Amino acid sequence: MKRSKVIMVLSLLVIAISAFAWTNELSRISVDGNKFVNEEGETIVFKGLNIADPDRLVKEGQWKPKLFEELAGWGANIVRLPVHPGAWREWGSDDYLKLLDQGIEWAKAEGLYVIIDWHSIGNLRTDLYQADMYDTSMRETLRFWYTVSRRYADEPAVALYEVFNEPTTFNGQLGTLSWDQWSNMVMDIINVIRANSPDAIPLVGGFNWAYDLTPVSDNPIPAENIAYVAHPYPQKREKPWVEKWEKDFGFVAENYPLIATEIGYMYPEQKGAHIPCLGDEEYGNTITTYFEEKGISWVAWVFDPDWSPQLIKDWDYTPTRAGELFKEAM
Amino acid sequence: MKRSKVIMVLSLLVIAISAFAWTNELSRISVDGNKFVNEEGETIVFKGLNIADPDRLVKEGQWKPKLFEELAGWGANIVRLPVHPGAWREWGSDDYLKLLDQGIEWAKAEGLYVIIDWHSIGNLRTDLYQADMYDTSMRETLRFWYTVSRRYADEPAVALYEVFNEPTTFNGQLGTLSWDQWSNMVMDIINVIRANSPDAIPLVGGFNWAYDLTPVSDNPIPAENIAYVAHPYPQKREKPWVEKWEKDFGFVAENYPLIATEIGYMYPEQKGAHIPCLGDEEYGNTITTYFEEKGISWVAWVFDPDWSPQLIKDWDYTPTRAGELFKEAM
Amino acid sequence: MKRSKVIMVLSLLVIAISAFAWTNELSRISVDGNKFVNEEGETIVFKGLNIADPDRLVKEGQWKPKLFEELAGWGANIVRLPVHPGAWREWGSDDYLKLLDQGIEWAKAEGLYVIIDWHSIGNLRTDLYQADMYDTSMRETLRFWYTVSRRYADEPAVALYEVFNEPTTFNGQLGTLSWDQWSNMVMDIINVIRANSPDAIPLVGGFNWAYDLTPVSDNPIPAENIAYVAHPYPQKREKPWVEKWEKDFGFVAENYPLIATEIGYMYPEQKGAHIPCLGDEEYGNTITTYFEEKGISWVAWVFDPDWSPQLIKDWDYTPTRAGELFKEAM
Ligand SMILES: [Mg+2]
Ligand SMILES: [Mg+2]
Ligand SMILES: [Mg+2]
Ligand SMILES: [Mg+2]
Ligand SMILES: [Mg+2]
Repeated sequence: MKRSKVIMVLSLLVIAISAFAWTNELSRISVDGNKFVNEEGETIVFKGLNIADPDRLVKEGQWKPKLFEELAGWGANIVRLPVHPGAWREWGSDDYLKLLDQGIEWAKAEGLYVIIDWHSIGNLRTDLYQADMYDTSMRETLRFWYTVSRRYADEPAVALYEVFNEPTTFNGQLGTLSWDQWSNMVMDIINVIRANSPDAIPLVGGFNWAYDLTPVSDNPIPAENIAYVAHPYPQKREKPWVEKWEKDFGFVAENYPLIATEIGYMYPEQKGAHIPCLGDEEYGNTITTYFEEKGISWVAWVFDPDWSPQLIKDWDYTPTRAGELFKEAM
Repeated sequence: MKRSKVIMVLSLLVIAISAFAWTNELSRISVDGNKFVNEEGETIVFKGLNIADPDRLVKEGQWKPKLFEELAGWGANIVRLPVHPGAWREWGSDDYLKLLDQGIEWAKAEGLYVIIDWHSIGNLRTDLYQADMYDTSMRETLRFWYTVSRRYADEPAVALYEVFNEPTTFNGQLGTLSWDQWSNMVMDIINVIRANSPDAIPLVGGFNWAYDLTPVSDNPIPAENIAYVAHPYPQKREKPWVEKWEKDFGFVAENYPLIATEIGYMYPEQKGAHIPCLGDEEYGNTITTYFEEKGISWVAWVFDPDWSPQLIKDWDYTPTRAGELFKEAM
Repeated sequence: MKRSKVIMVLSLLVIAISAFAWTNELSRISVDGNKFVNEEGETIVFKGLNIADPDRLVKEGQWKPKLFEELAGWGANIVRLPVHPGAWREWGSDDYLKLLDQGIEWAKAEGLYVIIDWHSIGNLRTDLYQADMYDTSMRETLRFWYTVSRRYADEPAVALYEVFNEPTTFNGQLGTLSWDQWSNMVMDIINVIRANSPDAIPLVGGFNWAYDLTPVSDNPIPAENIAYVAHPYPQKREKPWVEKWEKDFGFVAENYPLIATEIGYMYPEQKGAHIPCLGDEEYGNTITTYFEEKGISWVAWVFDPDWSPQLIKDWDYTPTRAGELFKEAM
């Protein structure tokens, strides 16, 4: 090989490696006041998509790089991975972590940040949950976060750790839970995450299935560098929505980064239609506009043709009406 | 068929259906001051019988309507079903609930109310129990009551829910348990029961194997519409008994419904004789008279020829001496 | 047989039985101020040796009376048995207790007292441990002590019960644990031990892997008749050591019996060398001299050729350099 040719080949190789490094290294996200910022100091507003539990996608034959390409193609800059406690136990932590490793690699290849979400619903204090698939315990929850935060401590793409999907007492049926009790449990989780992954940003939701953040005004979680979460589905409140959203959770965005890790709506005739998700484009437009004005991040639920409210109709990724709307808004 | 005959047949049918409905729908019990009352406002004093764990009766071939007919024949208006945590786990909740469903149907057919009793003995805080058969946990206990209270929310026959049979530290061998700690745990159980079965009446026992209710005078369980429990076996105290019973638990009957869900005695020569159950008719007469005067409900232990102290000698339901006495008193 | 011969034989038998009784009954140890004393009122300073988990010794074919003879031959008056929670579960309590029974008999035959040590490392409150072999729970810990303290209540040779080997948050990675929280958990353990084995002496270690007892000055564990523990390996602190040891744990010896249930050192080239155990004879001489002056008891770690820091090189019990030093000091 001639020398000039060698140089050219080497140059191309350097470019290729740089490009590879670029797609594979995302800028570390941190909290600055009420904003998410990257290492360059730029404010990042997340707009993205929920997918199903990786376990479920594997079983459906849909766990593949193509899925993440499509998410990026819609305009997402973040993907939320909901890890169901039952799936975590079924695979075992070693094997489930391999799934997460894969998903994170595929996400990074598309420039997508990742939220890891411990997808339980219920009362972590009384150990009662909304259904078997959400069954866990404080012991398992802390072990999950210990394991996950150690695994991804050096991976900036895993920017956000949603400590517990939806805290709820189900109108008392799952026993009582005070905000102080919840705050203490959240602090135990945050302390474990922080000690093992110092740069991670824990996400904290409130009661009423991660809708109600009103206690934050008087009793914020006593931790720095966290962000708050809301799941404001259409029927959590009657219209007009904006003033209620502002009072119920939106006010938090004045002082903390806020991310609605689940928003979505569906028509009553769609498969799996259920309260509080029934709605239409009025909801979709109102909430995306409200978030745009407030700089609130959001993640639409859910990029799946079976789990509702659906963003796609089939595994050709054909958007539903909600899918069209959120795709447009990203 | 002639018309008059048709009418007559139909009339009989109506009567039969009414009778059937009557035997199968018991009037809902509630708490009124220190009384149990039914929907008609009548004061109900319960006098009834404990049977063995349904699991045990199945294994002995004695789980059948005939058993409940006999209870009613003795004059009982209530039956207590002691559910051992180990039996609950062995059957699994789905199958054990079917047993309870059967028992409740058979009880209703005889006009008997039902107490469901979570039959553990020990210290729910330190998670130490008196023997393996009583082994449970707060997690399992709350799940049991969540499941059971949802199942029977609309069944007035299941009037009373005894949250935990006999709290005891076994003289400290099972660790310590303060009344405040116990009260908090009881409140967690009551809150779950109440949210899922709003009309249910939780029954709460005190320390010393459900004998000692003295802390209730200064620190009653902070819940409405509950009743208290005592298990005053003969040797809990030296004679003369009445003044001690009054001071140890009977005073509670001034302000709350009180039900002695276990009373009984046996002669030293009987099978399974043990302290604190050794006694004779003096005990039996004294306690039933005392309860009669105070309007305290009671449930004799136990309608079984093997489990002691026995009320029957055999599966022909031949009464023991204690059986004779309590049968007479009902 | 002639009569005089019979008498002589019988006399020898009496002597033999007396000797047997003597070797098999140790004088009960209790706490007197800051001393361990025996029934004769003599102050006892323990100097002894750790062996591996009996489970491990069984698997290595080294669980035998010869091992205990050797310990006594080195001059030990106490042996520490580290029971790993995983081994306890693997054998089941019934079979593991038989192992302990054997070890205690063999120890008594050599005049050795026994420390039973619940050999976990981690945070008992958050239920996170340093490695799988140390995994346990408060429930299991209390059950272990309930079972063990009942078993050996009447056995004076089992003098000391080390409630939890090494409490640590691993620099926060295992969550937080305040001294008050630790003290409350320790009190639950002590109360169970004390109620079932009234004469037992519980041993309590502090944070930083049982190194730091500074909280004891203001907040001693509120129990009588206990002793404190330290595990002062060489690299817990920079030289000069003595003033730091005095401040970190040694001051406790003014008011309570103190026993260093693990001390030891090894050279960097030895198998399994790790921080904080790297050291040499300067450490060995300094610490044994310090303990001698203060009357602090100690138990060297560990009489095993594989587990580090080793006191023996092989199963002929050939001493390592550390082994030589501690053998000499006993
Ligand atoms: Mg949801
Ligand atoms: Mg777009
Ligand atoms: Mg009883
Ligand atoms: Mg150690
Ligand atoms: Mg020597």
